[in-house]
Amino acid sequence: MNDDTPPDPASSVPEPDRKPGRSHGRLAISASLKPRDLMADMSVVGAWRARIVTLFPDAFPGTLGLSLTGKALDQGLWALETIDLRTFGQGRHRNVDDTPAGGGAGLVLRPDVVAAALEKAAEGTPQDRRQWPVVYLSPRGKPFTQAMARSWAQGQGITLLCGRFEGVDERVLQHCGVEEVSLGDFVLTGGEIAAQALIDATVRLIPRVLGNHLSTEEESFSGGLLEFPQYTKPADWNGLAIPDILLSGNHGKIAIWRREMAERLTKERRPDLWRAYLAQQGRDPDEDQER
Amino acid sequence: MNDDTPPDPASSVPEPDRKPGRSHGRLAISASLKPRDLMADMSVVGAWRARIVTLFPDAFPGTLGLSLTGKALDQGLWALETIDLRTFGQGRHRNVDDTPAGGGAGLVLRPDVVAAALEKAAEGTPQDRRQWPVVYLSPRGKPFTQAMARSWAQGQGITLLCGRFEGVDERVLQHCGVEEVSLGDFVLTGGEIAAQALIDATVRLIPRVLGNHLSTEEESFSGGLLEFPQYTKPADWNGLAIPDILLSGNHGKIAIWRREMAERLTKERRPDLWRAYLAQQGRDPDEDQER
Repeated sequence: MNDDTPPDPASSVPEPDRKPGRSHGRLAISASLKPRDLMADMSVVGAWRARIVTLFPDAFPGTLGLSLTGKALDQGLWALETIDLRTFGQGRHRNVDDTPAGGGAGLVLRPDVVAAALEKAAEGTPQDRRQWPVVYLSPRGKPFTQAMARSWAQGQGITLLCGRFEGVDERVLQHCGVEEVSLGDFVLTGGEIAAQALIDATVRLIPRVLGNHLSTEEESFSGGLLEFPQYTKPADWNGLAIPDILLSGNHGKIAIWRREMAERLTKERRPDLWRAYLAQQGRDPDEDQER
Repeated sequence: MNDDTPPDPASSVPEPDRKPGRSHGRLAISASLKPRDLMADMSVVGAWRARIVTLFPDAFPGTLGLSLTGKALDQGLWALETIDLRTFGQGRHRNVDDTPAGGGAGLVLRPDVVAAALEKAAEGTPQDRRQWPVVYLSPRGKPFTQAMARSWAQGQGITLLCGRFEGVDERVLQHCGVEEVSLGDFVLTGGEIAAQALIDATVRLIPRVLGNHLSTEEESFSGGLLEFPQYTKPADWNGLAIPDILLSGNHGKIAIWRREMAERLTKERRPDLWRAYLAQQGRDPDEDQER
């Protein structure tokens, strides 16, 4: 992942037409939360696009259809397309999986079925994987980070393959150059919720999605630190007061206090992030011993 | 988190009656995916319960209502209850948030509003937080892990507070003893998708939820290693063959090969997990230099 990589001019598309045309809005099509199918969504040219290969297309947009991500979806600031893996299944029963070679519990998604779905998902996408990553959600993958979300938000879109059962045949991952990304060190029943998390984290970084609602500059990880504690009204609650400094009106002192609190919190809770932060700042990892 | 902590007898409840009564099933109430309200769900005695404090109750069950977690929900193996934070809001507009003390972008959830919702969520739950953790989903929290999911699955339930905007007033987190848990080092627009991930990872560890569909013993993290590569039919695909050993029928050799592949993958992709694994095995972290 490299945030500084310029977009590949050969695969760039015209600046998105960000006008929220009525015919592009999800609500303009139907009152349901069901995303439109792949072809119908091709009309939203230039918007960041998430393509999801899944056995459960009904899981989308799910929570992504609510709140700020949902509003942005309606406005055409991004687009969501589901590709039903089942339609690429084999035989009368559209089988997508089979028993693991070598034995063991569960079922493994077949390489031929997954490859056909990924081929469909690749239609009209740039070759440059920095512009359009192809990702399999798996606990074996590289842990997802804010830096990855920032990199993805600068591309044109992403294809996300959601697994179920025991996993996906290894050959198709290697043959199709699929990047494995993990939501964290835990196991889910499938990739759908993980896909929603990755999309949510990415979409909120697309210009205009957050509007004036939120700041992405002071939040956790933006400067390598966890976020400082927040307070709001009432000034006294249950005998507990907001720290005086925050009510002082002295913006310089408030900024210093917040930075100190963010540093203290990071040091206490996440020694790993704290060490990386000190290194990034060119500060001595041992300096905090003296403070 | 301690997996070995015995349940507190003072707060234990009778062994769950796991019979899936028709009146307890989600589908028996209505054909929609909308969860029933808190009171209506009190009837499912003994099942593991997730209580979600959220501004977006419509986000639930979402993906949790599909596939294995959805089937288990219908069967009463676990229960989902949403508590709409908005109903605890103040004034005509049911305000739940206000500007951050000390200035800055965004809005912060008020301590009085959140405390009232958490009080509601605490009704009828055990005092012992090992039996019923109260968790705020926040990137500032302790990273969620498979060990945490195992610990939670052994309790009676959980309360999850989903944030939006800039966060929650710090005082209510401290006063109510709320544990902060993070899905990973990235920022989401809200806690709802994170809550679904935590619930999915936990619910699948509840007895009978996975049935014979999956094994939780050979998967990633169960032994401190990432999972070995999987293969299935066809034996030859696109000129790529399944490794011979897996087709040999020699189960001893297959088990050794899989262990070696899992070790190699973990060492290559996750040096942090690899070091922890070696330490757990009482092996020398430098031994891999010689292999």
